[in-house]
Amino acid sequence: METTDVLVIGGSAAGIVAATTGKSFYPDKKFMLVRHEEQVLVPCGIPYIFGTLDNSEANVVPDAVLFNAGIELKIGHTDFIDQEKKQCRFSDGAVVAFEKLVLATGSTPIIPSWLPGTDLENVYTVPKDKVYLDAFKKRLDGLEKVAIIGGGFIGVELADELSKAGKKVTIVEKMPHILSLAFDRELALKAEAVFQSKGVDIKTGSGARELRGSQKVEALILNNDERIETDAVILSVGYRPNSELASRSGLDINEMGFIKVNEYMRTQHFDIFAVGDCAEKFSFLTRTLKGLMLASTACAEARIAGMNLYKLSTVRTFNGTIAIFCTAIGDQAFGAAGVTENLAKERGFEIISGMFEGVDRHPGTLPDTQPQIVKLIASMDSGAILGGEVMGGNSIGELINMIGFVIQNRMSIDALLTSQIGTHPLLTAAPTAYPLIKAAEVIAKKKRSMKPLTA
Amino acid sequence: METTDVLVIGGSAAGIVAATTGKSFYPDKKFMLVRHEEQVLVPCGIPYIFGTLDNSEANVVPDAVLFNAGIELKIGHTDFIDQEKKQCRFSDGAVVAFEKLVLATGSTPIIPSWLPGTDLENVYTVPKDKVYLDAFKKRLDGLEKVAIIGGGFIGVELADELSKAGKKVTIVEKMPHILSLAFDRELALKAEAVFQSKGVDIKTGSGARELRGSQKVEALILNNDERIETDAVILSVGYRPNSELASRSGLDINEMGFIKVNEYMRTQHFDIFAVGDCAEKFSFLTRTLKGLMLASTACAEARIAGMNLYKLSTVRTFNGTIAIFCTAIGDQAFGAAGVTENLAKERGFEIISGMFEGVDRHPGTLPDTQPQIVKLIASMDSGAILGGEVMGGNSIGELINMIGFVIQNRMSIDALLTSQIGTHPLLTAAPTAYPLIKAAEVIAKKKRSMKPLTA
Repeated sequence: METTDVLVIGGSAAGIVAATTGKSFYPDKKFMLVRHEEQVLVPCGIPYIFGTLDNSEANVVPDAVLFNAGIELKIGHTDFIDQEKKQCRFSDGAVVAFEKLVLATGSTPIIPSWLPGTDLENVYTVPKDKVYLDAFKKRLDGLEKVAIIGGGFIGVELADELSKAGKKVTIVEKMPHILSLAFDRELALKAEAVFQSKGVDIKTGSGARELRGSQKVEALILNNDERIETDAVILSVGYRPNSELASRSGLDINEMGFIKVNEYMRTQHFDIFAVGDCAEKFSFLTRTLKGLMLASTACAEARIAGMNLYKLSTVRTFNGTIAIFCTAIGDQAFGAAGVTENLAKERGFEIISGMFEGVDRHPGTLPDTQPQIVKLIASMDSGAILGGEVMGGNSIGELINMIGFVIQNRMSIDALLTSQIGTHPLLTAAPTAYPLIKAAEVIAKKKRSMKPLTA
Repeated sequence: METTDVLVIGGSAAGIVAATTGKSFYPDKKFMLVRHEEQVLVPCGIPYIFGTLDNSEANVVPDAVLFNAGIELKIGHTDFIDQEKKQCRFSDGAVVAFEKLVLATGSTPIIPSWLPGTDLENVYTVPKDKVYLDAFKKRLDGLEKVAIIGGGFIGVELADELSKAGKKVTIVEKMPHILSLAFDRELALKAEAVFQSKGVDIKTGSGARELRGSQKVEALILNNDERIETDAVILSVGYRPNSELASRSGLDINEMGFIKVNEYMRTQHFDIFAVGDCAEKFSFLTRTLKGLMLASTACAEARIAGMNLYKLSTVRTFNGTIAIFCTAIGDQAFGAAGVTENLAKERGFEIISGMFEGVDRHPGTLPDTQPQIVKLIASMDSGAILGGEVMGGNSIGELINMIGFVIQNRMSIDALLTSQIGTHPLLTAAPTAYPLIKAAEVIAKKKRSMKPLTA
């Protein structure tokens, strides 16, 4: 029987960060990471192996990340966790004893059981599996028309990349707009317009009812009876947490299928942690259970588990998960943090929103100037910022992180109006028309117009 | 005699924002803006008229900004403010009575009195004056070698642009490194390396002693006796606040020459405000007087004055000025917020710093991947972040604004380690190696290694 101090199960972002952070905080402890894949892909880079990167080799996480940190790597399937003995059993019969265990078992694409025809040839999902994806990509090479079911981030990024690679792409989304978990109508329409300008077909408002074909998929039928001829179908309707190992080993699972954890990512067993896609999450704003799966969230959780394995070295100052997304479609980037206007209303917030459209350089005559739009959603009474949605050039990734910090620090419209920013002609909007501040001004102006006039 | 409700003196960023914000908050009031220039330039865009923009026309602020907001524009020189009568007198004899007055009179380049030869031909400064700059640019067209005295932001940006325009440029900086008010040695060296790769000469550590020539400038002599042959000299050694009008009208001026104001940008006269380069500033962190002049700071002050002209509608939640800079040199961008390590030590802070070098895309095999470096400076005991310095691609502008929010919200290393960010392959660093978080980890690790070991 092997022994280690800390055992991490799962080799993607969450597992790597839990192991490397833990090793950095507890350098005298022995760390071992177990995964079943021979090679691991950068998870967020997966859509880009179909176009921009053109192959999965360029998207492999080098194992040197682990070796250089002094972490032992083992390839294998974990069958069972013996909570009492603190041992893991592997499918090859090996047993590893641990002091601390971190589960980072990830997630698996959902194959919709309500959709007939998903067993036809050329129907694919998007798992984090290099072998599967390589075969999938090779198969697509000979095909022309691709239909993507699900207009979330994965579906949208694949659509953009496959369109770059010359495919005729259709996105099918049952909601009225694509990306509707992250964006309200205004910015979703902008994203749809970028796709339309690239020749990607968007079918919203009527979901898929059936896949048809003899052996190979040939067509997709929508709920409104529309028929879309296609050579391949990609199912991107969501992922479910890989919590079977935890469940069969007696760890508590929540009603959404995630491994239950406390704020330090600890399961009900003091020495067993869970992080990433498989671990329970609560909304920062609404306190409700959340099914969010993002590599950045996974890494934040993994850092917390890693730092606190042996002692509570870091007080966890946030109390829930904020969704912070960003993506690129064509040469436009989109980002969202916190709640949309729609979600805020649905959850019972009384809100007020404001939007400002500017440009991301100043003067706007500079080369590479792009439009920049910021929408802010605030609580009506407190003025606290609850959400933000942005569109623009490739500084959008950091701009939405800035809004993420606004939400995490519970800044209000008032705080934004008096806050200080830096600007530069080639790098940002003008100081006179910085969209994040201007959107706050729009809200302040709306609020004033609601009050009785005073002298 | 004309009358207005609000009179704003000064037509650059601060004046425009004070007027438009004020008009937005008090739409029933009559606003008038007076300036002496026929046309106003985007202040931060000025270096770019020498290269990227190639002319000053592309850098003019359209007066529509004022007209569309319903603000009256008057061209003229203000001679005197009668505080008691609340009237301004202009050089053409006109008098305008006001309820509220905002001074946004800006700043003027310093011509160093200690430097012989500044009255030679082809010796220029960089004022915010379109007529002067047009003549200056035209004159440079026929010249080859340009020496720039002063390696701050203006000097550095001009050097980059003139080098792009084919000039042979030398920067002379008396400090050991360029940009040393914003950056410590590590990042200043990176900036110098970019210049060296572009063929720009950098002379640091020995300032200019004398300009020589008969009629036209021909050479620059350094304190170490080195002689630099040149066809033109640009003096970029700083700006002084335009506070003569305020001073001769009896308003209080501080020991650095700035118009004294309180936190709402009010002078000692209840109805007279001052904002921008001419207005007093205190350091956010050290509480000492500050001579900072940035358009973004000016706009933040102008918003505060505009919002609070007639009532304290917005509680000013920040208590001092944070310097937030960014700039671009070649295809590298640099940003800084708060204090440098050097300044923090000089002011008596006990600090700890950490730096992380990563890339701004993930995987790093993606096209357009650039290095990204983050250095953080924190208070040793409290862990509060006091400053940050960054280098990378063109998302640096928003990344440094994010660090600006970290400082304004008084976030600690601990808060950063448990904070949430969003990432995307084409837009940001990897979630596993996001330099802002990793730099905080470096500090946390340093701190741990200082403590006695615990089990």
